[in-house]
Amino acid sequence: MSVSEHGVLDIHVDRYARRALMSRESENAALFAARGRADIVSLSGGMPDLGALKKSSLAEHTARVIRMGGQISLQYGSPQGMPKLREQICDVMALEGIVAKPGDIVITPGSQLGLDLVTRLFCDPGDVVLVEAPSYVGALEVFAACEAQVEHVEIDASGLRPEALVAALSALSAAGRRAKFLYTVPNFQNPAGVTLDLARRDAVVSICRDHGVLIVEDNPYGLLGLDGRTYPALRSLDAENVVYLGSFSKILAPGLRVGWVLAPPVVRERLVRSASAVTLCPPTLNQAIVSHYLAAEDWKAQIEDYRDVYRRRRDTMLAALAGHMPRGCGWSHPQGGFFVWLTLPEGMDSRALVAHATNRGVTFVPGTAFYGNGNGSAHARVAYSYADPERMTTGIRRLAAAMQDLQKEQV
Amino acid sequence: MSVSEHGVLDIHVDRYARRALMSRESENAALFAARGRADIVSLSGGMPDLGALKKSSLAEHTARVIRMGGQISLQYGSPQGMPKLREQICDVMALEGIVAKPGDIVITPGSQLGLDLVTRLFCDPGDVVLVEAPSYVGALEVFAACEAQVEHVEIDASGLRPEALVAALSALSAAGRRAKFLYTVPNFQNPAGVTLDLARRDAVVSICRDHGVLIVEDNPYGLLGLDGRTYPALRSLDAENVVYLGSFSKILAPGLRVGWVLAPPVVRERLVRSASAVTLCPPTLNQAIVSHYLAAEDWKAQIEDYRDVYRRRRDTMLAALAGHMPRGCGWSHPQGGFFVWLTLPEGMDSRALVAHATNRGVTFVPGTAFYGNGNGSAHARVAYSYADPERMTTGIRRLAAAMQDLQKEQV
Repeated sequence: MSVSEHGVLDIHVDRYARRALMSRESENAALFAARGRADIVSLSGGMPDLGALKKSSLAEHTARVIRMGGQISLQYGSPQGMPKLREQICDVMALEGIVAKPGDIVITPGSQLGLDLVTRLFCDPGDVVLVEAPSYVGALEVFAACEAQVEHVEIDASGLRPEALVAALSALSAAGRRAKFLYTVPNFQNPAGVTLDLARRDAVVSICRDHGVLIVEDNPYGLLGLDGRTYPALRSLDAENVVYLGSFSKILAPGLRVGWVLAPPVVRERLVRSASAVTLCPPTLNQAIVSHYLAAEDWKAQIEDYRDVYRRRRDTMLAALAGHMPRGCGWSHPQGGFFVWLTLPEGMDSRALVAHATNRGVTFVPGTAFYGNGNGSAHARVAYSYADPERMTTGIRRLAAAMQDLQKEQV
Repeated sequence: MSVSEHGVLDIHVDRYARRALMSRESENAALFAARGRADIVSLSGGMPDLGALKKSSLAEHTARVIRMGGQISLQYGSPQGMPKLREQICDVMALEGIVAKPGDIVITPGSQLGLDLVTRLFCDPGDVVLVEAPSYVGALEVFAACEAQVEHVEIDASGLRPEALVAALSALSAAGRRAKFLYTVPNFQNPAGVTLDLARRDAVVSICRDHGVLIVEDNPYGLLGLDGRTYPALRSLDAENVVYLGSFSKILAPGLRVGWVLAPPVVRERLVRSASAVTLCPPTLNQAIVSHYLAAEDWKAQIEDYRDVYRRRRDTMLAALAGHMPRGCGWSHPQGGFFVWLTLPEGMDSRALVAHATNRGVTFVPGTAFYGNGNGSAHARVAYSYADPERMTTGIRRLAAAMQDLQKEQV
């Protein structure tokens, strides 16, 4: 018998799967927990700002989808997703140089589940996945749940370092092991905010192909370059060795949970089969809503509206950091996406900062959340996507005060 | 190198996880494939008939949910699901005698994903699950994808046989093994249409508790008793040792993909964590739609409307079977749910019947789909939930003709 988190005897304790006992504490759950509290400024969750979304036209499309097409849009659908929407997704991906067939897309209830399906398809327990350091916390949770072993590859201001990738592959090879895939967020990375250099894109694609390592490209922020610039997707450079994950969460709305996987035909066949086993089909209504929206609205203008919002937010965040952060603190200057990555003053531990920050009325995510190996304590992630500018500035001021509280305590 | 289903070289072939190579061909995908073809009567897929659903009021609720509450209903939400909807789900479950706390419910994008999460929580590769023979094909796909080993337990016209359950447990124990859980559909079972006898409910609950085996109770059809009768859920008899799966797919609409898991607190804590890793959150919009619908509409009357439709359909199906089936063919007389389970004339193999049926313009599901061990060839499942009465009768006439074709061929 064992006792749960809440002190309850657990009669099931000797029944759980090994993966359940190994899983990471959900950082995502914690990230979203504080957002409802008016007295706390949340700079932790990467929620989009939906203020710029034209809700009343979306409401009309949705009502029409149900009233006129409810026999289909409220019914079970294809496990691969609506054909019409898969065609439209090809148009979205074309903005980043991707030439794809609708038949190679699998729509999922959010791209998070897409990553889970891909990981389950390739990773047996103990299999290695290469992951940027730092990387998206939700991906680390998927890899832990699948009992995959994370090997980190260093990044710098230009993204993933090809030399570090080669070194990681050589080290694995020397140990008689290999990686199943490289997981990368090439654009406006979460959490570090960096973007993979153009020249490096070719290098990363070649290295992975030469070493027989699949690339899993996760691209939720690619169309949110704050100067309007987009970069060629890795998938546009290699259609055979890249599995691409896309999402409407940041260019439309996350509450719809519509994401997709674009995969080579041989992989896609298997993904459809496992998607069918796991969900039967993605939510039909949500697909119909997105499809009608893309057909009837100027969705590119909507993306520009989002960019305008985030550009102002990013500038506010950078100004607040410049105005309030103590000496010795550094930060990234992201050209897109939702996040600024802080480097804390020498010797400061971000986990120790959490309690002080909460006392001062602000939340952030300690850097350790973004590593699978315990590193990251010198870093913190703050999001500029959600808090309004005034609250964001208040939050940064509070975070600076919390740092001073911690520094005083340590003297 | 290996060649895929479509004759394409697969450069990924030595990269897949073991579970991917073991997975069952998706029967679900095949079930839904024929439904779009006007020349074929589909008696295979278990789609609900949405003709009885009041779509225009649902459209209005949905538009309001987006227009007034879009800041929340289009945003990321709790990985456990909306608190308000979890309260309302308690009211739905109360109809079957369940006393539950909203805090012990985890909302999932369809209860299929709930079953996947529960299976991943408990089953390591090779672990045994006890499953009725026959059982729901989608559950067998989940168990295969999780590399669980299915041990079947016989059922009869009164549902799962307690003696067979004890025998299966004893056999496992004698082999030094144990089952992680019993998976059961106690009400209007898919595919056999049978309902677990009241006295047997107590027996099954006691046996599982005594043997330290968790019960996973899957109950999509419980409120669709065609005489209006409901049965006490196994969960109402044992709150600690039963994980319950519920769904709005059959009492509202499947295209919303809103299902739930009710679990003991210690299990629920872990389920929320893995749900968060797999989906971040269930679709917020869909939860808001269901919640508004339950609050504003007479949802019990809607369920009665559905029952009326399915009662008439069931009667049409039984009349068509009595009128057309050849000698030696038997069938169940379901009191609820969506399906009739056929026993084919002596010596007839349901897989051999598939091609003849397609030639004649009708589809059904061969009985082998519902077994994990290759059994079931003497059976076929036909659904009365979706085809309209006239087409359904045509379909049964065609199926009878296909049986005669096959019998002639075999002479």
